[in-house]
Amino acid sequence: MNEETIRLLLQKIKQQDLSIEEGVERLKILPFEDLGFAKVDYHRNLRQGFAEVIYCAGKTAEQVVAIAEKLSAQGGGNILATRATPEVYAAVLERIPDAEYHSLARTIMIRRGKQEKIGNILVLSAGTSDLPVAEEAAITAEMMGNHVERVYDTGVAGIHRLLSQTEKLRYARVIIVVAGMEGALASVVGGLVDRPVIAVPTSVGYGASFGGLAALLAMLNSCASGVSVVNIDNGFGAGYQASLINHLGEN
Amino acid sequence: MNEETIRLLLQKIKQQDLSIEEGVERLKILPFEDLGFAKVDYHRNLRQGFAEVIYCAGKTAEQVVAIAEKLSAQGGGNILATRATPEVYAAVLERIPDAEYHSLARTIMIRRGKQEKIGNILVLSAGTSDLPVAEEAAITAEMMGNHVERVYDTGVAGIHRLLSQTEKLRYARVIIVVAGMEGALASVVGGLVDRPVIAVPTSVGYGASFGGLAALLAMLNSCASGVSVVNIDNGFGAGYQASLINHLGEN
Amino acid sequence: MNEETIRLLLQKIKQQDLSIEEGVERLKILPFEDLGFAKVDYHRNLRQGFAEVIYCAGKTAEQVVAIAEKLSAQGGGNILATRATPEVYAAVLERIPDAEYHSLARTIMIRRGKQEKIGNILVLSAGTSDLPVAEEAAITAEMMGNHVERVYDTGVAGIHRLLSQTEKLRYARVIIVVAGMEGALASVVGGLVDRPVIAVPTSVGYGASFGGLAALLAMLNSCASGVSVVNIDNGFGAGYQASLINHLGEN
Amino acid sequence: MNEETIRLLLQKIKQQDLSIEEGVERLKILPFEDLGFAKVDYHRNLRQGFAEVIYCAGKTAEQVVAIAEKLSAQGGGNILATRATPEVYAAVLERIPDAEYHSLARTIMIRRGKQEKIGNILVLSAGTSDLPVAEEAAITAEMMGNHVERVYDTGVAGIHRLLSQTEKLRYARVIIVVAGMEGALASVVGGLVDRPVIAVPTSVGYGASFGGLAALLAMLNSCASGVSVVNIDNGFGAGYQASLINHLGEN
Amino acid sequence: MNEETIRLLLQKIKQQDLSIEEGVERLKILPFEDLGFAKVDYHRNLRQGFAEVIYCAGKTAEQVVAIAEKLSAQGGGNILATRATPEVYAAVLERIPDAEYHSLARTIMIRRGKQEKIGNILVLSAGTSDLPVAEEAAITAEMMGNHVERVYDTGVAGIHRLLSQTEKLRYARVIIVVAGMEGALASVVGGLVDRPVIAVPTSVGYGASFGGLAALLAMLNSCASGVSVVNIDNGFGAGYQASLINHLGEN
Amino acid sequence: MNEETIRLLLQKIKQQDLSIEEGVERLKILPFEDLGFAKVDYHRNLRQGFAEVIYCAGKTAEQVVAIAEKLSAQGGGNILATRATPEVYAAVLERIPDAEYHSLARTIMIRRGKQEKIGNILVLSAGTSDLPVAEEAAITAEMMGNHVERVYDTGVAGIHRLLSQTEKLRYARVIIVVAGMEGALASVVGGLVDRPVIAVPTSVGYGASFGGLAALLAMLNSCASGVSVVNIDNGFGAGYQASLINHLGEN
Amino acid sequence: MNEETIRLLLQKIKQQDLSIEEGVERLKILPFEDLGFAKVDYHRNLRQGFAEVIYCAGKTAEQVVAIAEKLSAQGGGNILATRATPEVYAAVLERIPDAEYHSLARTIMIRRGKQEKIGNILVLSAGTSDLPVAEEAAITAEMMGNHVERVYDTGVAGIHRLLSQTEKLRYARVIIVVAGMEGALASVVGGLVDRPVIAVPTSVGYGASFGGLAALLAMLNSCASGVSVVNIDNGFGAGYQASLINHLGEN
Amino acid sequence: MNEETIRLLLQKIKQQDLSIEEGVERLKILPFEDLGFAKVDYHRNLRQGFAEVIYCAGKTAEQVVAIAEKLSAQGGGNILATRATPEVYAAVLERIPDAEYHSLARTIMIRRGKQEKIGNILVLSAGTSDLPVAEEAAITAEMMGNHVERVYDTGVAGIHRLLSQTEKLRYARVIIVVAGMEGALASVVGGLVDRPVIAVPTSVGYGASFGGLAALLAMLNSCASGVSVVNIDNGFGAGYQASLINHLGEN
Repeated sequence: MNEETIRLLLQKIKQQDLSIEEGVERLKILPFEDLGFAKVDYHRNLRQGFAEVIYCAGKTAEQVVAIAEKLSAQGGGNILATRATPEVYAAVLERIPDAEYHSLARTIMIRRGKQEKIGNILVLSAGTSDLPVAEEAAITAEMMGNHVERVYDTGVAGIHRLLSQTEKLRYARVIIVVAGMEGALASVVGGLVDRPVIAVPTSVGYGASFGGLAALLAMLNSCASGVSVVNIDNGFGAGYQASLINHLGEN
Repeated sequence: MNEETIRLLLQKIKQQDLSIEEGVERLKILPFEDLGFAKVDYHRNLRQGFAEVIYCAGKTAEQVVAIAEKLSAQGGGNILATRATPEVYAAVLERIPDAEYHSLARTIMIRRGKQEKIGNILVLSAGTSDLPVAEEAAITAEMMGNHVERVYDTGVAGIHRLLSQTEKLRYARVIIVVAGMEGALASVVGGLVDRPVIAVPTSVGYGASFGGLAALLAMLNSCASGVSVVNIDNGFGAGYQASLINHLGEN
Repeated sequence: MNEETIRLLLQKIKQQDLSIEEGVERLKILPFEDLGFAKVDYHRNLRQGFAEVIYCAGKTAEQVVAIAEKLSAQGGGNILATRATPEVYAAVLERIPDAEYHSLARTIMIRRGKQEKIGNILVLSAGTSDLPVAEEAAITAEMMGNHVERVYDTGVAGIHRLLSQTEKLRYARVIIVVAGMEGALASVVGGLVDRPVIAVPTSVGYGASFGGLAALLAMLNSCASGVSVVNIDNGFGAGYQASLINHLGEN
Repeated sequence: MNEETIRLLLQKIKQQDLSIEEGVERLKILPFEDLGFAKVDYHRNLRQGFAEVIYCAGKTAEQVVAIAEKLSAQGGGNILATRATPEVYAAVLERIPDAEYHSLARTIMIRRGKQEKIGNILVLSAGTSDLPVAEEAAITAEMMGNHVERVYDTGVAGIHRLLSQTEKLRYARVIIVVAGMEGALASVVGGLVDRPVIAVPTSVGYGASFGGLAALLAMLNSCASGVSVVNIDNGFGAGYQASLINHLGEN
Repeated sequence: MNEETIRLLLQKIKQQDLSIEEGVERLKILPFEDLGFAKVDYHRNLRQGFAEVIYCAGKTAEQVVAIAEKLSAQGGGNILATRATPEVYAAVLERIPDAEYHSLARTIMIRRGKQEKIGNILVLSAGTSDLPVAEEAAITAEMMGNHVERVYDTGVAGIHRLLSQTEKLRYARVIIVVAGMEGALASVVGGLVDRPVIAVPTSVGYGASFGGLAALLAMLNSCASGVSVVNIDNGFGAGYQASLINHLGEN
Repeated sequence: MNEETIRLLLQKIKQQDLSIEEGVERLKILPFEDLGFAKVDYHRNLRQGFAEVIYCAGKTAEQVVAIAEKLSAQGGGNILATRATPEVYAAVLERIPDAEYHSLARTIMIRRGKQEKIGNILVLSAGTSDLPVAEEAAITAEMMGNHVERVYDTGVAGIHRLLSQTEKLRYARVIIVVAGMEGALASVVGGLVDRPVIAVPTSVGYGASFGGLAALLAMLNSCASGVSVVNIDNGFGAGYQASLINHLGEN
Repeated sequence: MNEETIRLLLQKIKQQDLSIEEGVERLKILPFEDLGFAKVDYHRNLRQGFAEVIYCAGKTAEQVVAIAEKLSAQGGGNILATRATPEVYAAVLERIPDAEYHSLARTIMIRRGKQEKIGNILVLSAGTSDLPVAEEAAITAEMMGNHVERVYDTGVAGIHRLLSQTEKLRYARVIIVVAGMEGALASVVGGLVDRPVIAVPTSVGYGASFGGLAALLAMLNSCASGVSVVNIDNGFGAGYQASLINHLGEN
Repeated sequence: MNEETIRLLLQKIKQQDLSIEEGVERLKILPFEDLGFAKVDYHRNLRQGFAEVIYCAGKTAEQVVAIAEKLSAQGGGNILATRATPEVYAAVLERIPDAEYHSLARTIMIRRGKQEKIGNILVLSAGTSDLPVAEEAAITAEMMGNHVERVYDTGVAGIHRLLSQTEKLRYARVIIVVAGMEGALASVVGGLVDRPVIAVPTSVGYGASFGGLAALLAMLNSCASGVSVVNIDNGFGAGYQASLINHLGEN
């Protein structure tokens, strides 16, 4: 639509309905409005299967429902709502009957159209308590068109559980490592593979874990190359980044 | 070579030169030695153009020279030495006359064979003081077989300098953002592109930058999706991770 | 009243009702009581339109009502109560029927007299969750006699939304930037304008935002000149400081 | 010049030397280059007396000289170089003979043209050790066209020294408070005046001052309204912000 | 009683009921039991008016009641229970009908005997929210036999309120300063008097007060001599220390 | 079982049912699965009296019951569940009637078989509030086959209480010191004995204890040799480590 | 001299050389200048033996010499210069030949007049490395007219060394405890005596002592009552506070 | 000697050379002097092969020489000096010709008598830069009579290097793990063995390792049971603790 605005302006110039000076004035303001939509169009319209995302924390159920309905009405790709409470899901469900909910990951999923999935993102988590974050990462990646393999409960204190997953490590294109406490899993995995590892520290732990700080620092100081880190408990961010990486092969 | 060891053992079993029980005993110990080399072979032999890396900090000039000579003698790919002082370079140069040095990035580069480079990694840095880290990232990526585009001095306080680089942002497959102080560049770039962004906080700054902590926290809390972070001043880590990501398209 | 005390003392000296030595003794103690009221008079009586402020956190509803009634009875300017719960508002409303409440900003507003507003303070906020703090800043500035322009939801991950507000940025005399997470908005705005920017970090975020610390550090380390910072979530402080700055032109 | 580019483009459209579609394409790229210069022109050309600033930390003497010469050649306003070592000054002096140096504040000043100064910025500092930061603030403000009053050594442990400066406090339009250790001066001053206070924590102190953190936190938590804070030791930032505020009255 | 044990042992030696070697063995173990009671006797029996203290946090109502009854039965001096909830008080009251409660300070007071009070401890607090801690300090000092003067709401943002209390500052032997937020009051008071100042940081504040850390650091870095600091919110500790100091004059 | 797999493979090689190359391929994958079970068998089957442990935090009652039942059915040694709420215990009790509960330590104990206990682990705690952590340590050690001596309420402010326990200090083989607040007990005990001391900081305290950080740092900086530290509130970890140490004498 | 100013003013009023209104105006400004000197006179003139103090850190040798000469010329009490380098001392010695230097404590002492010393302040230090801070405290107290007893090297890891000093502990009126590492000595001493304890954390230690933070936190969290704390390495502050306390008995 | 003192006292009682009351008085003071020597005798005289240790940091060469000579003259066991510079060693060597020096570990070793060593302590280190700390630990353990096995350069990024050491892990009684950066090695080792693991974080790393904090927190949060931690870079402490543990089996 915005290109249309520029086109109309240029036509008015051409048809001498607008003076050149007026055109210059309008164009000095205009481009700022352009900019963003260019980006939005780019990734929304050109790439199939890309999900819209609603971050529910700090939004009312009404707000989430309104956004979800609007996105749903646009007829685009999948819609994903993260950090959604059961109450928010109940409200969404009333208006969008095919909305699904994953209570552990606290995500609402509204699947739309046929989406081709490419592979293969592996989500590893260290302990049972890391599951909500791991699932948020996994579901995010799935909703954005990726095959996701999950391998949970592979903490470094039982290194054999990790090592027994060699095949899965080998076939993954991108690996998401979710770990709290000392976050050592990221380094061990980073040393085993030549694939990008996205590390997600979790706030799982107590005492000197300081809400995930211990795992965060450990992951940032990983002695293994090929590890980068997202915020504490940011499963969505890891899934999103992994999807961007995984889709690079396509273009 | 290690597969060879297993093969010989199995041949002895087959030829009954070794009892099955003895074979079991040997195999229970053996695999641990296997494991690593499997990985080394994997990425060394199968992938051309992959660089060997020597991290010089905390190593004597003699140690670096010895490692460099050994790697050079193996006749493999490029060799990269990071955090190398001029003294270390001088010592290396005596033994490896074609070793090059980048004084800003403190890297020694020993180029070997014909290496095909694939593209395109973009390295953005916020300020002049961030250049050593940015160059370390760029050189690492180049030595690992990537085309690298550099765009420096694009801090967010002069957002137009960044925005004027739209074309380069559009054509990059992976973007490395190097920034100290408030580290805001990562978020702005992450909002402009749909490509993975690897953010490197630098220790550039003073006062409440607390040696890079301010930039690190800012990058971890980026409101833009698609950003992951490496350690403060870890240009090498960013270049390595970006290369892993960029080479995904090949396989 | 205090000048009166000095005047009476001097008259007694003049009339020889008091020895000079006694006068010296009394004057050595007296001035301390003077000092503050000088200030209070100064800004309360001389400047029209200046609001009285009640900080409700840690005060009972009864205490707030008592203070509000006393201030209201004095017949001065506007009265503003910040961090007020709905319960506190209900209690105030019973006694002061024209008290208004802004539930998001948690402020009670009691408007008094005709107040001339001067312009123009712009309040920018990065995300929806920053609104309570942004509104506290905006309402504070309004109650103190300033025209306030609000531009919300202009986070740096969608830089175009900010850039499309160029006109408003241009016409503002003072700009308040409210942002949580990585707080990058302050730097970007500081780079676009030549006006004083008051940055308010918010506690919006999770994980390594550490209750607003990430945004706070980022804003303190802003690479843009012209940015100063108030405490985390201190919308009132930013509105107050902006008003002081905006009223400088008057004197 | 950039407006010229747009004007020429529109003329080509009008004269049908360029198709509308080609015009749209060009205009989609163009604006990014526009943006910054608009700002540069705005504050450089329209406002007399505005200083160019070179931040010397992390720059070589050669780089500083080159920038200073280029700015000097442009024939604009004053030039200020902060965090300049004596060596840098010596190098500058060889090429710009009228460059002055303030060794305590580590600033180089190159004064150009007749600059009208407006008043009145007051710089208060708590202790002798805070002088370098205080002077950096004062000189910055002077170079940007402000009358600056200095009152040093007024720490809160001798509150009478501060209180004896009532007249100066009263006549200042903006007050910069520079203090290390516990940074209490900002709160006391903020309670005495109805003017904007810019607080600069310094790294002066030892032990639990943690490099200025104690003063920084104290200033951010000031119980006085009207205080905002810049980075530790950031005298320049305070002087710049104070100048922006002080010049508001002009427009 | 323990001296008795030694005496009996020595008598047995003297009477040759015990061999010297056996005596040596017993004495090698014995003294450890001595040590503490020496101290307990010392300050309990010799000094009238000294209070017994029960720290209620982390104790059940039953435990507090049991300890209080036991102490009460001993017929000694006053009994003070700190951090006591209303529930704990209710339980105590059932068994000790003359127990009093101060709800703000959360202390239970059981007054016993005639206690001579000596003077003069001054408790200053910065804001209304600091009252619970200030009262805990004041009541502690009173229960330990000190005259206490309270001056509340004298924050440094209204320095005149403090300065108008000159007489009280002059007559105090020890001063307790209770302040949250930036904790500046301790430095200002320390600069006005030549008496020991015990500073109590409180957790009053928000954002970058970090639960009292800002005030704590400020007080530790006080530029005024003669200030020492106790833990955040530790009103009891300040009252106790002030009482020890105040009673020095007696001995 | 896994040795069996290798044995079968070797037999197939020997019997020429499998080619050598196929054997090599299978063996490259296999060993990872081996590793862990070797360890599990090792310490579960060979050592009698070793307890299985369930960490209940972050697990549902159903999950805990399921694990407990499975372990109980295996007929092995004791089962210990830590951080168990009364609700979890109630659920376990329904299925395992002889399960016991220690409400202070929040542990469930399921005792199985005859377990020989060796001695002697001493658990010292500083204050009443440290008891839950101290009991968790003591119960853990008991369930793992150790005699445990408890000496509680021996804080350093009453050093005589500690010194009167000389005999117990002398007869202990390993000492666990549990202390919050300033954690000084570990250093004093470490100076009195030549036995390994395991120090457990607790989160008991307020203000600048920062959730146990003060005690943790104190213990890490102990001037006494022979002290090592586990995580804040980690009674289980201390008991486990002490048991490992205490059982060394056996082998 | 300032009283003189008031006296002259009152005389002019009395003699009708000055109108009452003019007198009021002058007195509104005047008192601020008064305030400090009142205090200075108070403790300088009335109390013999009180030392003047020069804090040398951040002052040039010339500045220190100038201040020392001026104070020396005034003919008052002792002069103490803290944190003085040997170079500063050499410069002082040239002008004040009887200046003494304590190299460990880095203090310059200029003794003047006959000073009566009262007793008894005890300075305890934990380790040899704490001596510079302990001596700074001891010398400060001595220069201010106190008898000082030193007991060094009594760390808690050898508790017997402390306990063998019972007599000295008993006779001290105030106790200064100087300790780095885990700072436990303050708690142990606080538990042994009923005298005020001033604790000085030192930066002695490594690793997780974080420049004295561990000792500081430990001392603030002391489980013993009667302990207050000064800044890390602030021997002067402790000596000054102890002297204030010790002199209370006199008045 | 001290027992002798008690014995003499008792004999005087028995011989009626001393009254019982005088005996009681003397005994009340005496025991404090006893206490420590009891301990010293205990472990010095009873246990052969125990080393005396001198911590050199913060001591002059002269002080170290004096202590070493005194200890050497006593004719006891080995003497170990840690954190010794080459200069200190040179000074010691002049007086004690058989003193040895380990420059990497910065330790001086003076071997005395025949010492029986018991085994087996394993020292594992993650990287080359961790060697100084690892060697300090190893040498400490050796000097205290333990067989020490060293396995260096087994960081978790190359997990196979660790796993290939299974036999050594199996035969160790105590394991010391020395690691900087993310410190993950402690958790992996803790998961592989059923032996006590003493973890030593090192300050090796940069950026967000914050001087060893990252490794320290990771080790404290280890998901493996059986791991306890000593201070950053405290190789001596780990070696000492490991020796205490290893010698438990003897008694």
